[in-house]
Amino acid sequence: MTAPARLLTLTTDFGTRDAYVPAMKGTVLSINPSVTMVDITHEIAPQDVMEAAFVLRGAVPYFPDGTVHLVVVDPGVGTRRRAVALRKGGHWFVGADNGLFPLLLDGPPDEAVELNRPAFWRTPSPSDTFHGRDIFAPVAAHLTAGRTLADVGTPIETLQPLHWALPLIDEEGIQGWVVHVDRFGNCITNIPRQAFEKARNGRAIKCFVGNTILQRLHRTYGEVASGEPLVLFGSSDFLEIAVNAGNAAELLGIRKGAPVNVVFV
Amino acid sequence: MTAPARLLTLTTDFGTRDAYVPAMKGTVLSINPSVTMVDITHEIAPQDVMEAAFVLRGAVPYFPDGTVHLVVVDPGVGTRRRAVALRKGGHWFVGADNGLFPLLLDGPPDEAVELNRPAFWRTPSPSDTFHGRDIFAPVAAHLTAGRTLADVGTPIETLQPLHWALPLIDEEGIQGWVVHVDRFGNCITNIPRQAFEKARNGRAIKCFVGNTILQRLHRTYGEVASGEPLVLFGSSDFLEIAVNAGNAAELLGIRKGAPVNVVFV
Amino acid sequence: MTAPARLLTLTTDFGTRDAYVPAMKGTVLSINPSVTMVDITHEIAPQDVMEAAFVLRGAVPYFPDGTVHLVVVDPGVGTRRRAVALRKGGHWFVGADNGLFPLLLDGPPDEAVELNRPAFWRTPSPSDTFHGRDIFAPVAAHLTAGRTLADVGTPIETLQPLHWALPLIDEEGIQGWVVHVDRFGNCITNIPRQAFEKARNGRAIKCFVGNTILQRLHRTYGEVASGEPLVLFGSSDFLEIAVNAGNAAELLGIRKGAPVNVVFV
Repeated sequence: MTAPARLLTLTTDFGTRDAYVPAMKGTVLSINPSVTMVDITHEIAPQDVMEAAFVLRGAVPYFPDGTVHLVVVDPGVGTRRRAVALRKGGHWFVGADNGLFPLLLDGPPDEAVELNRPAFWRTPSPSDTFHGRDIFAPVAAHLTAGRTLADVGTPIETLQPLHWALPLIDEEGIQGWVVHVDRFGNCITNIPRQAFEKARNGRAIKCFVGNTILQRLHRTYGEVASGEPLVLFGSSDFLEIAVNAGNAAELLGIRKGAPVNVVFV
Repeated sequence: MTAPARLLTLTTDFGTRDAYVPAMKGTVLSINPSVTMVDITHEIAPQDVMEAAFVLRGAVPYFPDGTVHLVVVDPGVGTRRRAVALRKGGHWFVGADNGLFPLLLDGPPDEAVELNRPAFWRTPSPSDTFHGRDIFAPVAAHLTAGRTLADVGTPIETLQPLHWALPLIDEEGIQGWVVHVDRFGNCITNIPRQAFEKARNGRAIKCFVGNTILQRLHRTYGEVASGEPLVLFGSSDFLEIAVNAGNAAELLGIRKGAPVNVVFV
Repeated sequence: MTAPARLLTLTTDFGTRDAYVPAMKGTVLSINPSVTMVDITHEIAPQDVMEAAFVLRGAVPYFPDGTVHLVVVDPGVGTRRRAVALRKGGHWFVGADNGLFPLLLDGPPDEAVELNRPAFWRTPSPSDTFHGRDIFAPVAAHLTAGRTLADVGTPIETLQPLHWALPLIDEEGIQGWVVHVDRFGNCITNIPRQAFEKARNGRAIKCFVGNTILQRLHRTYGEVASGEPLVLFGSSDFLEIAVNAGNAAELLGIRKGAPVNVVFV
């Protein structure tokens, strides 16, 4: 397996007002000054492991092989949850073993280690509240500087599991849920295009969400008038409720977790 | 004409919570790993082409020649609006042909092409809702990697036009509008310093905005007491209503679009 | 003394919606295209010099020697306050002489200069409202490109002083204040671990904040149940009021400035 490149992404729930993210970046640059860092987002809702996995699923596939992804959404910091690093295909990941990586990856990692070598930490006495700065960021930096997983930890066989709620599919239709509301108010469901098309089998659809009934599937926002709702497959190939030039979540009163029912007719 | 440098700026209405911006950055780095990317902003109000042009006008002039500016504020994504790339002086631009570039540039581009060569896209079957990731970002990356406009598209003669509302100027005064409220609550108008000084011709002024009358032009915020309103020319040389150490938009009840009248006395 | 490296951090109260930060970055890149820029934060409350110093104290120590820190929180822009650059140990700083640097640094700088050499500015006629773009950013860029403090200004002996409010410590206890509320709602006080442990001298504690009484000191968030409040030393070694998996500021009604009393029992 080739070594990671000098490319590092960062995903946290730290926000951008505090010193937490730059403290991690300074730590990384102190170890590898020639790293290229890209922020995925720091606006994950506090401790929301599922949201972090969802956003990462929309970003990771577009980065080149050899990228190291540093992920710090870590409600259990300072407790006994493990610190881990792992590889799946050409991508490396560093973070807490709290279920986030199984949500993010389809299938088990190709390699995984528990981070138990303080020589690769910022300090052998890490803060009890900020492993991002003291363990995860330095280990990620060492990986971009040529260290291997075998260098930074001890192999482990399994990760703490966590699973997505899957949509319910039968002959008559599909029930899914809104799993993410994006900046535009687009309501993205857990209904994937491929399973949808297979179950639909060419039939027409009706889509029920909140008090709204949508009578057909569209292809892009501009196919309906401004202010009109529509249902379509978004850029990640999941079914999405939107309003052309408007905010579907606000206008239709939809929140994360809302059920979405598709009936084949 | 020299080729673009490896410097790429990004401007979108995508916000920073979702995967959209990092998916574009990963796509760029997959094509040109040695690019330097700088965010202009991702907080443009959704689909607000004018706001994007206004913010870019305050940023683009400070970048060096050879910079490529990737701009994705694209209400018409997936409809028949064209995807374009163009050059004006030493700056390159990539985005939708929706009027944004005529608002941003003074006068026609030196070169412009329609992006119709899928070989330079991420995929020949781009998403109907996310040309930023699948067309604009990869084309911009190819430009930073040495490709020319002639490589990535077919020459076009004109862009979709869009114009700023100009202030009304006569012998007695000027009427303009607030076109942007910045983070500090400073209310920036469409009244440029040069036209103002020419019409004023050395006379004293009164400035009327909302319920407030300002009796003279100041030079900097600290010339009035804390909490006091003032009118001055801001760093982009447009007339601006401000409050020293305070938020003019909130304190004076001014919004984007509010009329501002200057009377010469 | 070694020269600064090509690493530059940026801290402002400009937010991320406007052209102000990218105008500074473009100015920097026009002078030194090979600089590496890292944002500390641009979300400092407008004109809040103390908040900027607090956030920088949590970030600067993690950057490598040779880093230049550009800090633009400048309520007095355009008035007679001085523009300065200085060095403390291996770190360089550029900004306004408004008390921020004495709050940030422990003790006087090793070298300091007043920025009075327009040859290193963007223009000899800087904007009266935006020295960040026209003076501070270009000087910082020149420092990363090999210029010395002696090149860019004239030595000065002292900076405008400003001091933190210190906690009150006696035999029975400590009274401090909440000086920062972070993104998680953690309420960080001005009570440092070292002074606390010395005064406590092994005794048990009670901590009073708002209507809440906390009966012991914890080590990490996960030691109490979800939704329960606790007091602990955070990652910067200051006493902090938190709620496990919750927002202490909201749940306990605590704001910046709230008194925190620790009694030794």
